[in-house]
Amino acid sequence: MLLEKIENPNDIKKIRKSDYETLAEEIREFLIQKISVTGGHLGSNLGAVELTMALHLSLNLPEDKIIWDVGHQSYTHKLLTGRKDGFDALRQYHGMSGFPKRKESDYDAFDTGHSSTSISAGLGLVKARDIKGEKRTIVSVIGDGSLTGGMAYEAMNNAAKLDTNFIIILNDNKMSISENVGGVSKYLNNIRTTSGYLDLKEGIYNALSATKGGDGMVKGIRRAKASFKQLVIPGMLFEDMGITYLGPVDGHDIEGMIKIIKEAKRVKGAVMVHVMTQKGKGYGPAEKHPARFHGAEPFDIETGIPSKKRTEANYTDIFSTVMCKLGQRDERVVAITAAMPDGTGLKRFRNMYPDRFFDVGIAEEHAVTFAAGLAAGGLKPIVAVYSSFLQRAYDQILHDVCIQNLPVVFAIDRAGLVGSDGETHQGIFDFTYLSGIPNMNIMAPKNKWELSDMMKFAVNFEGPIALRYPRGTAYAGLQEFRAPVEYGKAEWIYEESEIALLAVGSMVKTAEDVRDRLKSMGHDVSLVNARFVKPIDEETVLKAAENHRLIVTMEENVACGGYGEKVLECLYSHKALNDSCKCICVTLPDAYIEHGNVELLKKEIGVDADSIVGRITEELK
Amino acid sequence: MLLEKIENPNDIKKIRKSDYETLAEEIREFLIQKISVTGGHLGSNLGAVELTMALHLSLNLPEDKIIWDVGHQSYTHKLLTGRKDGFDALRQYHGMSGFPKRKESDYDAFDTGHSSTSISAGLGLVKARDIKGEKRTIVSVIGDGSLTGGMAYEAMNNAAKLDTNFIIILNDNKMSISENVGGVSKYLNNIRTTSGYLDLKEGIYNALSATKGGDGMVKGIRRAKASFKQLVIPGMLFEDMGITYLGPVDGHDIEGMIKIIKEAKRVKGAVMVHVMTQKGKGYGPAEKHPARFHGAEPFDIETGIPSKKRTEANYTDIFSTVMCKLGQRDERVVAITAAMPDGTGLKRFRNMYPDRFFDVGIAEEHAVTFAAGLAAGGLKPIVAVYSSFLQRAYDQILHDVCIQNLPVVFAIDRAGLVGSDGETHQGIFDFTYLSGIPNMNIMAPKNKWELSDMMKFAVNFEGPIALRYPRGTAYAGLQEFRAPVEYGKAEWIYEESEIALLAVGSMVKTAEDVRDRLKSMGHDVSLVNARFVKPIDEETVLKAAENHRLIVTMEENVACGGYGEKVLECLYSHKALNDSCKCICVTLPDAYIEHGNVELLKKEIGVDADSIVGRITEELK
Repeated sequence: MLLEKIENPNDIKKIRKSDYETLAEEIREFLIQKISVTGGHLGSNLGAVELTMALHLSLNLPEDKIIWDVGHQSYTHKLLTGRKDGFDALRQYHGMSGFPKRKESDYDAFDTGHSSTSISAGLGLVKARDIKGEKRTIVSVIGDGSLTGGMAYEAMNNAAKLDTNFIIILNDNKMSISENVGGVSKYLNNIRTTSGYLDLKEGIYNALSATKGGDGMVKGIRRAKASFKQLVIPGMLFEDMGITYLGPVDGHDIEGMIKIIKEAKRVKGAVMVHVMTQKGKGYGPAEKHPARFHGAEPFDIETGIPSKKRTEANYTDIFSTVMCKLGQRDERVVAITAAMPDGTGLKRFRNMYPDRFFDVGIAEEHAVTFAAGLAAGGLKPIVAVYSSFLQRAYDQILHDVCIQNLPVVFAIDRAGLVGSDGETHQGIFDFTYLSGIPNMNIMAPKNKWELSDMMKFAVNFEGPIALRYPRGTAYAGLQEFRAPVEYGKAEWIYEESEIALLAVGSMVKTAEDVRDRLKSMGHDVSLVNARFVKPIDEETVLKAAENHRLIVTMEENVACGGYGEKVLECLYSHKALNDSCKCICVTLPDAYIEHGNVELLKKEIGVDADSIVGRITEELK
Repeated sequence: MLLEKIENPNDIKKIRKSDYETLAEEIREFLIQKISVTGGHLGSNLGAVELTMALHLSLNLPEDKIIWDVGHQSYTHKLLTGRKDGFDALRQYHGMSGFPKRKESDYDAFDTGHSSTSISAGLGLVKARDIKGEKRTIVSVIGDGSLTGGMAYEAMNNAAKLDTNFIIILNDNKMSISENVGGVSKYLNNIRTTSGYLDLKEGIYNALSATKGGDGMVKGIRRAKASFKQLVIPGMLFEDMGITYLGPVDGHDIEGMIKIIKEAKRVKGAVMVHVMTQKGKGYGPAEKHPARFHGAEPFDIETGIPSKKRTEANYTDIFSTVMCKLGQRDERVVAITAAMPDGTGLKRFRNMYPDRFFDVGIAEEHAVTFAAGLAAGGLKPIVAVYSSFLQRAYDQILHDVCIQNLPVVFAIDRAGLVGSDGETHQGIFDFTYLSGIPNMNIMAPKNKWELSDMMKFAVNFEGPIALRYPRGTAYAGLQEFRAPVEYGKAEWIYEESEIALLAVGSMVKTAEDVRDRLKSMGHDVSLVNARFVKPIDEETVLKAAENHRLIVTMEENVACGGYGEKVLECLYSHKALNDSCKCICVTLPDAYIEHGNVELLKKEIGVDADSIVGRITEELK
């Protein structure tokens, strides 16, 4: 096993050239084997094995720096930098992260997780290098999907001015997570299919030179600032911007890549190396189903089938179904996703109503303002997006949707703790950033039926409205509580006295557990499903204050700007907060929360039923 | 006067062709005259007079729609749509907005204010039109500066797929607010200087056809998906993406533009019309000093000199000075602006330390992640930015700066109420969106000396830190109170009893007024300068609670997630909120606040000294 020789960083440099291919195969087997047990990003990592090897062979790490865009393709990099043993606890509580982390290794130059940041960060490292007079190579590796994000373009626009070396590797697998979209994607496809261009250029020059007046024309072309060379070879989009383009090169040919990276290092300025890779390379099921193996659950290697068969519907499934119904009922309903037709569950809507479905690429900013335009044009747009990715569009929500009070529905998936993706993906800030925005309205469903009811409410609402629901299995309890959704109204589930639990969304289930335990201890406990986080149901809050001596709010969001603070403020301003009625706000801490099993994380940060019961009994003493 | 005939929308269509030029001149005189009195965006409007006329002559408004990017160039459009009388109260309290507003006119298709949104919104209107089977022309007008913003690129990438008409007018004046930057700007400059391209193309075709084998080559070129035509004519950057390019055309030649817009209407798909305009056109001082006349104060028409001479320094001036000092003291200090070297006061730093100054274009997202890269590379980046524009980079602050706890300083100008720019520009959400972010720290200075002290503190701080200061004159009172800035510590200015005013930043001055009035009514009043909004100084808050019966927090931010909520929560969780100590939170309302004089606005929303004294005396009853 060659892989046994890879213990420490740069060990790969001891491997013989003739063994590169074998090592690549061993790495693939290793990744497939490990990820089949832990789950993780398989397809992008299988695609980047040789690219990562070529980079490690070409660079002097850790003095040189690699910034991995998104970072889910960094497994081989982790393996080659002394973290082979980390794969047994990949993405698990206190285990190795699935993304680059500076605190995990000196070989991780910059933390990533969201898309399209690597060129900006790389350019920052380049400028720091130049100002400090250091010598090192900076490489940003970005996927073709990430290129649909606007900030990558902002960064390229700035990189174009550079007069020192900066290598951008375009890792082109023709995919983001699902298929890629848009003009640039089409353009890249053109490059891939026009390999004859270089010959063509020579032919044109020769033809012109042989013609009367042709020589002057060639000179004229050369004089023109956008030189003829740039015009005719592939990559003119990038060259037009002022970035040297090299490629395309086969991303599974290690020596070919080493050669082109050597070339790239000699360029004074920003240089884009176009590397063609295949997502899922070397593992049949992943090659065939790239979307499914983007972020995979543990699976059977032989068949590629998930080890645990999912029997219960998750919230995304419920959303998927209700969207199809809404689309059928009302032709004005349109759906928007930012490169997540699979992840958000909009695929079925797309198949049924292709003309009313829009995948805009990894472009949350555009997605939201585009939705505002659709709403201004008289339609009913639903933007389906993950909580942490909607952060990208904060200003567009505030500035383009809410000032005009446009009826855009935000269906926010992966809200609350998401588990194994960790810090960058936890959806724990949306109540905060959305609540501060005037005209915004926010809901959270307690179970699968309520998600459906809230969606129906939302599409008929005359203004901006968001509903957020968590990753994973949709709660199927409390089916009997299904009072119609009314604007700004909470729902009493159990109405008793002494302690009132006011729980939001996913925390209603936890509140049931808390209530059971408190009941068994002899307490009387009411349970309110908050439903609305903005506006909160002040009437219900004040009613609860009247005949309970303790109000406990519960939410999967940081405290600042959350539901609890709103309830506390309401109680105080109505003089309902006093010795006969106290309030505890259960929230997430003011901290980034690492990856790991959600139940474990909840225990650690004190938002599981046990911890909450503990806080309540402490308070009641 | 031709202008007298322009009373109602579409009246311009009654004007004779031969009178177009005269009307344009009259409009220019009108704008100069009105804006010299009220202040407003002069340069961009003078540049867009003929373009607006050509659009109104070519379109059928309001069925057709124009979306003005940023919107500060929409004055002629307002004038031509029945709002001539509005100019006397332009940007004034209850007067006409300086930006498009749907609630102001049916002829305003979409509200704008921030940059780079118009193509996204326009594409939304296009899709709504197509889905509803309507017939109308949609035109998005975007400046070359706005093209440096990534979401414009996200939108173009999506527009490229379109198979129905969508007109994008590139209003190219070679400027954003200051000079334009980056690869695309350089590229546009190339287009401007290569008018011979079309001839060149013909020449090449002819030359090739006359050569042996040349015919085949021409066919080969034509077969290649990126056609030769696209490669050789100007606009290949846009054509590469899949957007038809027409132009460039003189933006002061009305009939030329009418002709090209007619052409553009016939394109099936997205078409970019490149219009060359001159910022400030027709008014000498504005042509000479485009940055100064971007957003102008009232001025003398003869000389162009501001009517009121500014005698006192504003916060931007103070920031400007301290940045130069910091740059001198520490070579690791670098400064970043998103197209605002003038507005943020970084121009002097740029002139002194050009290698450590970065104008990234209108690209706040890139600005922040680029700064994170600079910090990761060992430098001390200061991002100078307006509060409402920093909203664009919320995710980058959260995801790229704060997770890694990188020492980036955010110098946030125009925080709080900004006055005449109104809803889109009020900087009243920054405490909210920044407070929710783990690892973030937030300060606000009470006066000009404290801004300076806080900047010095900030550049030596080992993590992300923001300080926010308002538009306008820097407060020069309280000079004698200049205790060293200590992390997380507030400053006692007057220590008495009964009432404690805890004021943040700009509200310290208001708090002095409030205190004077309460004193004259016989109350004892303490005054605390909060200094830190995150973390708040709990010790000071609790000390205040001990010997005062009323705590009053004061801030220029919405309530949600602001300083007041934090104080309330602190008091409550420490059991310091009770009958012997109450708390009032003075904040801005949960609403967008229109344009107008800041003092008037403060009165209206109850954050002026009078209103606050009223609330306090009411509470004390």
